Amino acid sequence: MSSTFEEQLSKYADLIVRVGLNLQPGQNLLVTGVGSSVEAAPLVRAAAESAYRAGANYVDVFWSDQYLLQSRLRYASAESLNYVPAWRLKALMEYAEQDAALLAVFAEDPTLLADENPEYMAVQRRAVSEALKPFNDYRRKGTINWTGAAGVIPGWAKQVFPDLPPDDAVAKLWQTVFEVCRINEADPIAAWQSHIGRIMARRQYLNAKQYDALHFTGPGTDLKVGLVANHRWLGGQGETTQGILHTPNLPTEETFTMPHCERVDGVVTASKPLSVSGTLIREFSMTFADGVVQNVTANQGESILRKLTEFDEGAARLGEVALVPHSSPISQSGILFYNTLFDENAANHIAIGAAYAESVENGTKLSKEELRAIGGNDSMIHVDFMIGSAEMNVDGILADGSAEPVMRNGEWAFDVM
Amino acid sequence: MSSTFEEQLSKYADLIVRVGLNLQPGQNLLVTGVGSSVEAAPLVRAAAESAYRAGANYVDVFWSDQYLLQSRLRYASAESLNYVPAWRLKALMEYAEQDAALLAVFAEDPTLLADENPEYMAVQRRAVSEALKPFNDYRRKGTINWTGAAGVIPGWAKQVFPDLPPDDAVAKLWQTVFEVCRINEADPIAAWQSHIGRIMARRQYLNAKQYDALHFTGPGTDLKVGLVANHRWLGGQGETTQGILHTPNLPTEETFTMPHCERVDGVVTASKPLSVSGTLIREFSMTFADGVVQNVTANQGESILRKLTEFDEGAARLGEVALVPHSSPISQSGILFYNTLFDENAANHIAIGAAYAESVENGTKLSKEELRAIGGNDSMIHVDFMIGSAEMNVDGILADGSAEPVMRNGEWAFDVM
Repeated sequence: MSSTFEEQLSKYADLIVRVGLNLQPGQNLLVTGVGSSVEAAPLVRAAAESAYRAGANYVDVFWSDQYLLQSRLRYASAESLNYVPAWRLKALMEYAEQDAALLAVFAEDPTLLADENPEYMAVQRRAVSEALKPFNDYRRKGTINWTGAAGVIPGWAKQVFPDLPPDDAVAKLWQTVFEVCRINEADPIAAWQSHIGRIMARRQYLNAKQYDALHFTGPGTDLKVGLVANHRWLGGQGETTQGILHTPNLPTEETFTMPHCERVDGVVTASKPLSVSGTLIREFSMTFADGVVQNVTANQGESILRKLTEFDEGAARLGEVALVPHSSPISQSGILFYNTLFDENAANHIAIGAAYAESVENGTKLSKEELRAIGGNDSMIHVDFMIGSAEMNVDGILADGSAEPVMRNGEWAFDVM
Repeated sequence: MSSTFEEQLSKYADLIVRVGLNLQPGQNLLVTGVGSSVEAAPLVRAAAESAYRAGANYVDVFWSDQYLLQSRLRYASAESLNYVPAWRLKALMEYAEQDAALLAVFAEDPTLLADENPEYMAVQRRAVSEALKPFNDYRRKGTINWTGAAGVIPGWAKQVFPDLPPDDAVAKLWQTVFEVCRINEADPIAAWQSHIGRIMARRQYLNAKQYDALHFTGPGTDLKVGLVANHRWLGGQGETTQGILHTPNLPTEETFTMPHCERVDGVVTASKPLSVSGTLIREFSMTFADGVVQNVTANQGESILRKLTEFDEGAARLGEVALVPHSSPISQSGILFYNTLFDENAANHIAIGAAYAESVENGTKLSKEELRAIGGNDSMIHVDFMIGSAEMNVDGILADGSAEPVMRNGEWAFDVM
């Protein structure tokens, strides 16, 4: 390709705005940063320009910076870590109630906070989760067209390509992001429409099956995950209550649905590390009984992972199960991104924490209590981790107990087109 | 000096937090960006760390980015430029009502917006001024310990040192900022305390004189500026209503007071260019009669300047008059900073727009109407421009009409120590 970086970045921004958000003329757009989005200013600027060109009324950016949090964790008093300014919820609700479009820009250095006090991090994270809960509850209504996308920053690039000089690592990670996001295709937007169509066909097949459970087997994994009755397989495209079709997260390769949070049993071993607020958790396993995590082991970060599962009652149960073929472009890149947005699209995965209400019929109309009663998990967290590999098989268990192959050796075991 | 850049930056941050803000243990600190503060992240991070070390409860940062405004001015609809999200005022008031400390980080590329539509810029600027007026009115109460300081960004450095490679320009501008802020002194905080003491002595002398007017003469300038009765000369240090001594703006070399907004007559010629929202106004003059701007001429940016004086009724009258010796470190550097924070400390200057209520006895207790009745100007803007030089004389006119020398050839004409 002879595109310059600026041309590629502009295509990526257009993909985010037109396919990811499907921004409507006259809409406001709120861009929220995760990690150090101030270092991803070139992407944020390109997205804002693309949004204004697409007719945005106003683009607001809530920038973020992990170094500010690092200083706070190191030098602020322990009591002050509970403090969350009231304006943050008000500002988020202002946009939510306008049905503004929402773009999350992920720009995390996965190890920046690795040496900070995990107790303090948990206190700070809980305070933010509690303060912003009304916003996250509002989002469950499904009125917001949203997506997430990544901005490359030096600290992330260094983790992915530790042997390259810093500038080369940044350049190479950008090229990798563009490649797995299909930016180098002649028409990236058309390529995405075609890709999304294939995901939608898988969804349709799986929805018709209405498996009672999935059975995952692979190295270190033998896990049965019950699915809620009338579950819906989602992925590729989302639709707001007003009918705006959007693509939550770029890239996306997954098809996912709602596990029954009381019907998960067995052992599962992660196939990739997990980055939690700047700390890497490596080589970890969990056992489940009746939906609840019984035991957690990890070669690195075990205490962080255990704290995570103890965050609240729902943090020890599953809220999502997702299928991704091992041949996905992210998997093909052979790169470990240390970033869930990418790594979750390289492998089958599950998430502890909150279920997505829309992944069951009429779920967005249920209260959290009603959702929980049918098996949909409730929590203030939602953390994905990878379990798939080229050695994983997945069976779909029908209501009569019989099994059908869903995946074999990490690839789909059924045809749709 | 053998200090590394990081050490210098850390000393600069400590100066901002301890002398500029005099941050109190347990206070919240709000950092607001002017220009593209996202590019000044190293300074913002250093200031946040220094604040937490000084006992801050929480440091919040409202980052800013001029490129987002540029895209908006170029691609958003004309009507939408009036839009200001409601949360911005709520967030500022949340901190104001807590008497949080307030740091403005200036990081402007002075020419980035030079080619944008001046009508659109005026609409956008007015909308923000009107939306945030309650906050700026609240600030007049004098309850907030605040300061402003500059963060070097590439676009600014390029303007100041156009012949240097970008990285060298940034490095040289940082060194210049450190030098004029006395960071290279053995003990910068002690050096500032001594400097502030000298400014306070000038204030005391001038306050005792209670001149009826000042008479400025120099190349292209013959201007009489009446002063309000019971005016107070300020500068160096400010004091909040709770008694927190702070240093508004670093660097600061000025001593300033309140002109009578109906008693300004004559002609004044700027001695340095003025940067207004990304546009440079060069070689300009204004004539005044009975306090009101009668005519504006400029070799560059005349229409922007005229629009500025037409922003509201008070924008065509003076709100500040300030004295700065020509031997100030900023003036000695011989550098034109294209940034008011620095350039105003190189020369005598005046400002069109709002007066500072604290620059008259009991001014903060007066309503805006009462203040206006005694000659204190009201406006939504406040824009300084430089009129001093090595060729300027200033006389103080006493109540009986007699004149005393205040400055000769740009230097103080009276002794205080």
